[in-house]
Amino acid sequence: MRSQAHDRHPELQAALDHLIISGGKRIRPTLVLLTGNMLGADHDRLIKTAAAVEMLHTATLVHDDLIDGALLRRGNPTLNSHWSPAATVLTGDFIFARAAKLAAETDSLPVMKLFAETLAIIVNGELTQLFSSRGLANRENYNSRIYSKTASLFEMSARAAAMISPVNADIVEIMGQFGRNIGMAFQILDDILDFTGDQDAVGKPVGSDLLQGLITLPTLYYIEQFPEDDNVQVLLKGDFYRETPAMAALVQSIRSSKCVGFALEDARSLVNDALQKLLNLPDGEEKKALEKLALYIVNRKI
Amino acid sequence: MRSQAHDRHPELQAALDHLIISGGKRIRPTLVLLTGNMLGADHDRLIKTAAAVEMLHTATLVHDDLIDGALLRRGNPTLNSHWSPAATVLTGDFIFARAAKLAAETDSLPVMKLFAETLAIIVNGELTQLFSSRGLANRENYNSRIYSKTASLFEMSARAAAMISPVNADIVEIMGQFGRNIGMAFQILDDILDFTGDQDAVGKPVGSDLLQGLITLPTLYYIEQFPEDDNVQVLLKGDFYRETPAMAALVQSIRSSKCVGFALEDARSLVNDALQKLLNLPDGEEKKALEKLALYIVNRKI
Repeated sequence: MRSQAHDRHPELQAALDHLIISGGKRIRPTLVLLTGNMLGADHDRLIKTAAAVEMLHTATLVHDDLIDGALLRRGNPTLNSHWSPAATVLTGDFIFARAAKLAAETDSLPVMKLFAETLAIIVNGELTQLFSSRGLANRENYNSRIYSKTASLFEMSARAAAMISPVNADIVEIMGQFGRNIGMAFQILDDILDFTGDQDAVGKPVGSDLLQGLITLPTLYYIEQFPEDDNVQVLLKGDFYRETPAMAALVQSIRSSKCVGFALEDARSLVNDALQKLLNLPDGEEKKALEKLALYIVNRKI
Repeated sequence: MRSQAHDRHPELQAALDHLIISGGKRIRPTLVLLTGNMLGADHDRLIKTAAAVEMLHTATLVHDDLIDGALLRRGNPTLNSHWSPAATVLTGDFIFARAAKLAAETDSLPVMKLFAETLAIIVNGELTQLFSSRGLANRENYNSRIYSKTASLFEMSARAAAMISPVNADIVEIMGQFGRNIGMAFQILDDILDFTGDQDAVGKPVGSDLLQGLITLPTLYYIEQFPEDDNVQVLLKGDFYRETPAMAALVQSIRSSKCVGFALEDARSLVNDALQKLLNLPDGEEKKALEKLALYIVNRKI
């Protein structure tokens, strides 16, 4: 990633360095590396794949933050908080270009195609969210949204690593499902932590998704469990997307209800399914590390 | 291109249809098809390459128009003239994704790498223009700018078509240079037509580049020929980027000077060099059509 950030524009260089330094947990490239190491991928191609995935992720975040007008990301100022929209759009495009270059350098056409398809899925998901009225979420929409937003890139991470490894198509498929499952679990955990997380660590107010009109799994469970709740009625009438006292009260109700636990059960179940998929793969250090990664995803506090 | 535009969002579908219908002269895909047909490329891969090139071009225009705040493109309303910046950014990203998918479907790693490199060159050029103070152009900067902005994609068009053809690396290189040359000429003509073109056909006021602080080849020649001109002095002092009477007068002076002719000579010379490169290729209908395309580029009025 750093080698892709070398550039003759000092401003762009600084922006790319900032993005790389303020990077998050690096779960996606970790998934690439562990999967590829487990399956015997060539080291250099694996590094290219891992960097391509993380740069694709970074590019989508840059455009997302611009679109949402977000000023902070992982507690650090976003690009758009101090740059013009023009510079932010172009920097995102530049990172897309570098991600595509890295994907091409894997010398694998299947990886390249997967890269392009995944980008299309992610962007399509964002367009769906933009065009569909918020708040009208149901379980199917929710699953489709978190697949586009998060699980598709987790799936690509594990699948691409398998694609450049000396394994058959069945293993590629298994690893794709593994990635998809832990990606779904990862996003469900994110949505849970929006209700239960340490406000300082998460860097957003409690319940910020709901306060912005975004209905996630704990809220879906709450609506199913307590359809007669006054504040649920307010929500279902479409009077959300405002920080009203009713919504603040609903956030507290959900937070202290069992619905957070129901959502957590779903995430754990996805991870258990993912772990099952690894059973037929040869044991070893990398497999153990992958299992640890999957468990970390549902046990993390931030 | 149409098959890439099928989508389940009616709004996105409408936007993509609008972009495809209001498409321009399609010179880049024409260059791909003529080159590939001349060199014996497989038809399906050639179509994919042509569509990838035109969609990459379209995606960059969508983001460009947003960045420039342009309300019209080829006489048609731009996306950003009636859509939010968010929807416009994402639609551009979506078209990038589809262009990348088409490039991957050529089943050629070299084409894929060229695609990624060309995207990086185009975006890097736009960043350079954004970060560098306008008006400080010299011939070297100008050439570098028009290469990034225009000639790089013409080069990719001809080079990619050769890459998927049963020809050796020398021919690929020759076709790349051919594309680059006519691409440079194409942009010089655009810059000339900004001064001399029919205002209605061009869809912009005469001299709009200079009035926006963009110094192109006719202006560069004028500065060299008439450094003592009062309005050139105003320009060199950096008092441009405004529609002042001095700049309006300068536009008229350049328009009626020989400098437009000097720039045209440069464009013709580039096209002649391009035509020379074709000499060693076998004669035939496609070669004649390529020659006609190259000559059209320097003889067009719009």
